[in-house]
Amino acid sequence: MYKVAFLPGDGIGQDLKEVVKVFRDKIEEKYGFSFELNELPIGGNAIDSFGDPLPPDVLKECKNSDAVFLIAVGGPKWDNNPPNLRPEAGLLKLRKSLNVFCNIRPIKLSKHLTHLSCLKCETVNKGLDIVILRELTEGLYFGEPRGIYTQPDGSKVAINTMSYSSTTIEKFAKIGFELAMSRKKNLTSVDKANVLENSRLWREVVENLSKSYPEIKLNHLYVDNAALQMIYDPNQFDVIITENLFGDILSDEAAALVGSLGLLPSASIGDNKPFLYEPVHGSAPSIAGKNIANPIATIFSIALMLRLSFERNDIALDLENAVEKVLETKVGTADLKMKNTIGTREFANEVLKNL
Amino acid sequence: MYKVAFLPGDGIGQDLKEVVKVFRDKIEEKYGFSFELNELPIGGNAIDSFGDPLPPDVLKECKNSDAVFLIAVGGPKWDNNPPNLRPEAGLLKLRKSLNVFCNIRPIKLSKHLTHLSCLKCETVNKGLDIVILRELTEGLYFGEPRGIYTQPDGSKVAINTMSYSSTTIEKFAKIGFELAMSRKKNLTSVDKANVLENSRLWREVVENLSKSYPEIKLNHLYVDNAALQMIYDPNQFDVIITENLFGDILSDEAAALVGSLGLLPSASIGDNKPFLYEPVHGSAPSIAGKNIANPIATIFSIALMLRLSFERNDIALDLENAVEKVLETKVGTADLKMKNTIGTREFANEVLKNL
Ligand SMILES: CC(C)[C@H](C(=O)O)[C@@H](O)C(=O)O
Ligand SMILES: CC(C)[C@H](C(=O)O)[C@@H](O)C(=O)O
Repeated sequence: MYKVAFLPGDGIGQDLKEVVKVFRDKIEEKYGFSFELNELPIGGNAIDSFGDPLPPDVLKECKNSDAVFLIAVGGPKWDNNPPNLRPEAGLLKLRKSLNVFCNIRPIKLSKHLTHLSCLKCETVNKGLDIVILRELTEGLYFGEPRGIYTQPDGSKVAINTMSYSSTTIEKFAKIGFELAMSRKKNLTSVDKANVLENSRLWREVVENLSKSYPEIKLNHLYVDNAALQMIYDPNQFDVIITENLFGDILSDEAAALVGSLGLLPSASIGDNKPFLYEPVHGSAPSIAGKNIANPIATIFSIALMLRLSFERNDIALDLENAVEKVLETKVGTADLKMKNTIGTREFANEVLKNL
Repeated sequence: MYKVAFLPGDGIGQDLKEVVKVFRDKIEEKYGFSFELNELPIGGNAIDSFGDPLPPDVLKECKNSDAVFLIAVGGPKWDNNPPNLRPEAGLLKLRKSLNVFCNIRPIKLSKHLTHLSCLKCETVNKGLDIVILRELTEGLYFGEPRGIYTQPDGSKVAINTMSYSSTTIEKFAKIGFELAMSRKKNLTSVDKANVLENSRLWREVVENLSKSYPEIKLNHLYVDNAALQMIYDPNQFDVIITENLFGDILSDEAAALVGSLGLLPSASIGDNKPFLYEPVHGSAPSIAGKNIANPIATIFSIALMLRLSFERNDIALDLENAVEKVLETKVGTADLKMKNTIGTREFANEVLKNL
């Protein structure tokens, strides 16, 4: 039986925890396929209980699991903590320690939800279907040296280092080429090669790799232009590959096109399991405990886990279709602005009924 | 008489050159206010003629002028040149040498052009009026060390350095607070303080400075969230301050909200004159020489120069109003998708007639 390190985290993480549990049970009942949820603390609640956003024992348990499922971390309570005692520090350390260098963010807009998009309908009326791959273990997030230094005159200087190795870029980009081969064979690599050496190396490695994929239409875009094109004409994109910080910014921008962060799942994969699954949304403290959080991102993240860690694409597809069927009936959580608004648990139950 | 270093540059820079000249003449005739345009090479044409995107003599002339007016640089011809022989290198060196650390990008959408915006009309039907201030002389663009290094095993590592001094952040942010005081007193500082030391220093300096501006409503946003909010609800913003690369990305994203890069001017100012003026659009090689480029960004940049370098806010306002009057008659260049499409020269003439 597969073992999942289950990290509900803070805020609505606690509301959505129950959703994961009922889906686990239903999948066992319906498909005879079973995984164990080993609940562990991370983020704010781990700081409160253990003085550490990712206690060593939790990390050890994660590493010994078949997959890691995290919901969300953070909240105002810990916002003024020193950097290493903030919830995000636990998340970043987890990503780095699991060496999950490829963060997969599918940006899909169901045809039943086009009213949500901030874009004019002409642009999105066929829906949206993009996948952003974001490198997750190098770049400005982790580069050394880093720090804030006081100068002799009392002024301060801050330093961060953006650093990439050709080895990581290559194995990351390869996932992008492979994914594009299984989709529309259209790959966009986003960089800032007119300014940054990091981006020049990035482009060189991606160009070299493209020789092994003659069928792929490869396009390079500067990140500023990508931010603009994402709004002008998002459907020009199929698969996008980019470095850590650019991916952070562009994937949130793309999420805005969809109209609700509550819809978007993510998977982070590496050379070896366990892989990490998380909904893209945050811990949303202001709506926590109210049974109104949208469970779709969590359900889609379960689907990604079934597909990528447990080779059960069949169940993954069933889950995705069940969500689509519920949306067709024009019910949804408040953020979806449907004809009928229902709560987190009620929506999850509707999906289960359609499974 | 004021002396302007005039750098038309490449591509449509050559089409728009004539527009600047006729406006200069008209302003002299109508207001008795005169400035001299000292035309100089930069970018691709400077590489072709002098093997240098910013020849030392050109830089010297710029420094000895009252203002620098640049239109656009770049084109496919020079895209595969080595980094220091690319048109952008000339632009970056110019910004750094003039020490114009504050890039001002007004994002304005006329009520006659709301059909252009990619956003749904409910969001933008009152138009848009945001100013993005982007720091222009530090950060990843200029930080050292930088380079691409080959490792003993043949793999490569790229390094860039993001670096900010509290001195620069403070004098830059001060311009933001002052500008917000003259507008809606609403200032948003964009950073990534949950990850980067640069952003923590940034936030600390901005927080300290805010004590001198008790009337200003200051808000901090993470850059990923800012990219999302810019689409959800752009009118929540009044003045935005941010570092170099974040400003590059967010201002292009904001430009997409307006629907045409051809509308947006910019000014870059520092402790001392000369200041630098440039339309935000690029050299658009594919439409160069066809008399179809939109001259509005150039006309608005002339207005900014009159306002900020020559203290002639009266003429600046007249220019801006004249553009608005022409748009009211529903004519515009092709990119504006108006009832009647006219060429670059013809549009410029219409504006002159309304002056
Ligand atoms: C919480 C934060 C550190 C994180 C990031 O920047 O990676 C988040 O924005 C994300 O995208 O998962
Ligand atoms: C051409 C490029 C170097 C430049 C920049 O990144 O600053 C451009 O994108 C801009 O915004 O003016």
